[in-house]
Amino acid sequence: MHWLEATYHIQSNPGDIEARAEALAIEQSIEMPPSAVRQPEILREILARVESIAQVGEGIFRVVLRMATDTTAFQVPGLINVLFGNCSLQEDIELVDFHLPPSLLSAFSGPRFGIAGLRQLTNVHDRPLTCTALKPQGLSPTQLAELAYTFALGGIDIVKDDHGITNQHFAPFAHRVRAIMRAVAQANAETGLNTHYAPMLAGSPRTLRDNLQIARKEGVRMVLVAPMLIGLPVFHEMVEDLGMAVLGHPAFAGNRMAPALMLGKLFRLLGTDATIFPNYGGRFAYSTQTCMDLAQAARAPWAHIHPSLPVPAGGMTVERVEEIVGFYGLDTMLLVGGNLLAAGDHLLERTQAFVQKVAASVEKI
Amino acid sequence: MHWLEATYHIQSNPGDIEARAEALAIEQSIEMPPSAVRQPEILREILARVESIAQVGEGIFRVVLRMATDTTAFQVPGLINVLFGNCSLQEDIELVDFHLPPSLLSAFSGPRFGIAGLRQLTNVHDRPLTCTALKPQGLSPTQLAELAYTFALGGIDIVKDDHGITNQHFAPFAHRVRAIMRAVAQANAETGLNTHYAPMLAGSPRTLRDNLQIARKEGVRMVLVAPMLIGLPVFHEMVEDLGMAVLGHPAFAGNRMAPALMLGKLFRLLGTDATIFPNYGGRFAYSTQTCMDLAQAARAPWAHIHPSLPVPAGGMTVERVEEIVGFYGLDTMLLVGGNLLAAGDHLLERTQAFVQKVAASVEKI
Repeated sequence: MHWLEATYHIQSNPGDIEARAEALAIEQSIEMPPSAVRQPEILREILARVESIAQVGEGIFRVVLRMATDTTAFQVPGLINVLFGNCSLQEDIELVDFHLPPSLLSAFSGPRFGIAGLRQLTNVHDRPLTCTALKPQGLSPTQLAELAYTFALGGIDIVKDDHGITNQHFAPFAHRVRAIMRAVAQANAETGLNTHYAPMLAGSPRTLRDNLQIARKEGVRMVLVAPMLIGLPVFHEMVEDLGMAVLGHPAFAGNRMAPALMLGKLFRLLGTDATIFPNYGGRFAYSTQTCMDLAQAARAPWAHIHPSLPVPAGGMTVERVEEIVGFYGLDTMLLVGGNLLAAGDHLLERTQAFVQKVAASVEKI
Repeated sequence: MHWLEATYHIQSNPGDIEARAEALAIEQSIEMPPSAVRQPEILREILARVESIAQVGEGIFRVVLRMATDTTAFQVPGLINVLFGNCSLQEDIELVDFHLPPSLLSAFSGPRFGIAGLRQLTNVHDRPLTCTALKPQGLSPTQLAELAYTFALGGIDIVKDDHGITNQHFAPFAHRVRAIMRAVAQANAETGLNTHYAPMLAGSPRTLRDNLQIARKEGVRMVLVAPMLIGLPVFHEMVEDLGMAVLGHPAFAGNRMAPALMLGKLFRLLGTDATIFPNYGGRFAYSTQTCMDLAQAARAPWAHIHPSLPVPAGGMTVERVEEIVGFYGLDTMLLVGGNLLAAGDHLLERTQAFVQKVAASVEKI
C-alpha cells in the first residue's frame, strides 16, 4: 500500500475541525458517504485518512491527510485533483504542502537542466544570474531586437520576453524569435559573452507545437512558460522531450495553494528549471517569509529532482541588487525589467550597472 | 481600435483606489512604468485604461478596465493572461466579469450542443434533466457497469463517471468505457429509454487523444471534463472537433475569479454544454445569489454563444428535487450521486424516485 501526504490549512472552529478534516478526506477521495460504500477494501485502500490535526493559529488548523497514490493514476491531472480538485472551491481551505512517496515521485522528472544546467548553459558559476524582460508588448520584432541587442551588449545573462508577449500580430512568434536571436548572437559576437534569449511560449497544444518547431530551428536554448496559463498537464508533457531550459512564470497561478508550494515545489516537480515569483517589497504583497519558503522549496534537496533556480521579480530595481543577493544567496537569478527600461537613452549604462552590481554583490554574501 | 472590458473587485482604502486601479491597468497590459514607454502609440493603443471606479461595499471597489483586444492575441492563454494573469497573485483582487467585443468574441464558438443540443441528445424537452455519478473510485469496470446498468434501468438521463475516476489501474479507460457503454445500451434496450454515459476525460494532450479515440470507437456521445485540470487552452482546442457534448466539472477552478464568471461564463465561452457547480446548501459554501448568478451566466443570451445547462451538485438529495427545480427552473440538470448510492440494495427504487420527482416537479414551476 502506498500513500501520499497532503497538508492543508483549514479555517474552523475548534469544535468542528475533526468533522471538517474527515469531510475533506472524503471529498478528496471517494466523494460519497463511507457508510454507502459496499466494498470494505475501498474504505481500507482508497478512502483518504486524517493523519493529524494541529492548531497553528487563531481558528486555523494544520491538517495532514494520507491519500492512496493509486488514486492519482500517476498522472498530473489525477495528482492535482487528489491534492486540490474539489477543495479548491472551498475558500477556507489552503493547500500548503504535499509529500510524494518514491513510487509516485518516480513518475516525475522535475527540471531537466536545474540550477547546474542553467549555470552550464550560461557559463556563470560564481555569481547570481541576471535576467531582464523585453517590454512593452506592442513593440515590433525589430524594436524588441534592438532592446535585446542593448541588453546583451550590457552583459545580461538572460533576456526574456515580457510574459504578456504571446502571439500578437504586432510581434508574431516566428519573426520575433528570428530577429531577437540574431540580435543577441551579434551582441555575443561583439562582447565575447553568452547572453541567451528566452521567448514566451503560450498557446493551445497545436500553437505550442508550431512555436517550438520555430524555436528549435532558430537555435533557442531556453523558453519562458507560464505553466498555469497553458495547463499543468500540457506543460509536464511538453517538458518531456523539450531539450531547452524552462523559466517558469507565475501568471494565473494565484489560487489558494501556498505560493511556496505552487511556484516552488509543484512547478519544480513538473519541470521548471527556474521559477519567477513576485519578490517581497515589489508590486505584490508576498512576505519575506513566503519568498524564503518559496526559494527553499525550489532549491532544497529532493530525491532525484534537480533544484530549480529562484527568480525574485516584480518591480525590482538595480538599487536593490545587493539586498536581494544577500537575502537569496548565490543560486538566484535577478530579474530587473522596467527599472532598466526607465533609463531611456542610458539603457546600456543601466544594464551594465546592473550586471556589475550583481558581480560585485558576491563578495558581500 | 477594439477594446474588451474587465471588471474587478478590489479591496482598498478609498484614498488609494485610484492609484490601485491605475497600477492594475499597467500590470495587466504594458507591465512597466508608462513614463518609460518611448512609443506614444503604445500608450494610446496598448496600455489598459481605467473606465470607472465605484464603491460597492465597505472597502471594496468595482473597477472596470478597458484593454486592447489585440493584446489577447485572440487565443485562450492571451485572454486569460490579460484578464487575470499577474493579478491572480494579488489576493485583494477578484475578477468578477468581462465583456468581449464582437471582434474578439468571434474567436470563440462556445458550447457546440448547448441546452438545445443536450435536450435533443437525451430526447428530454419538457423537464429538467437528471444525472448521477458512478462512485466510488476503486470499483472495477464490471462493478461500475453494474451500477450504470441500474441507474439506466431507473431512467436517469446521464450517468457520468465520478470526476475522480481518471485513468487509474483499477478501472482503465478502455475497459471501463466499453463495459459501461454496453451495460447502458442493454438497459436502454430493456426500458426503451435513452440514458447516456459520460466518461471522465483527463490527462495530458497525448492521453486525451488516446482516450478520445477509444470513446469515439465505443460510441460515446457525451464526456465529463474539468477544464482547469487539463488546462483551458487544451480544453478549448479539444472541443473544436470533438463532436460530443461536454459536461464541465469545476475541479481545481477555485481561484478568486467569481464562480459565476469562471464556471458560468468562461467555461461556456470555451465550450462546456453543461456546467456542474456546488449548489447552495450542499457540501460547499456557495450562496443562493452566487448560484443564481452562475446559472444566469450559463444561460443568458450572448451573441452567437449557445446557452449552457446549469448542473447544481455537491451533496444534493432526492428530497430536495422540488426545491432545486423551483429555484433554477426547467433548463437545469439535477445531479444526485452519493444520495442515490446510499440506498444500498434499493438503488433502483431510489433512482426511480429521483427520476419521478424531477418529472413531477415540472407542474409546480
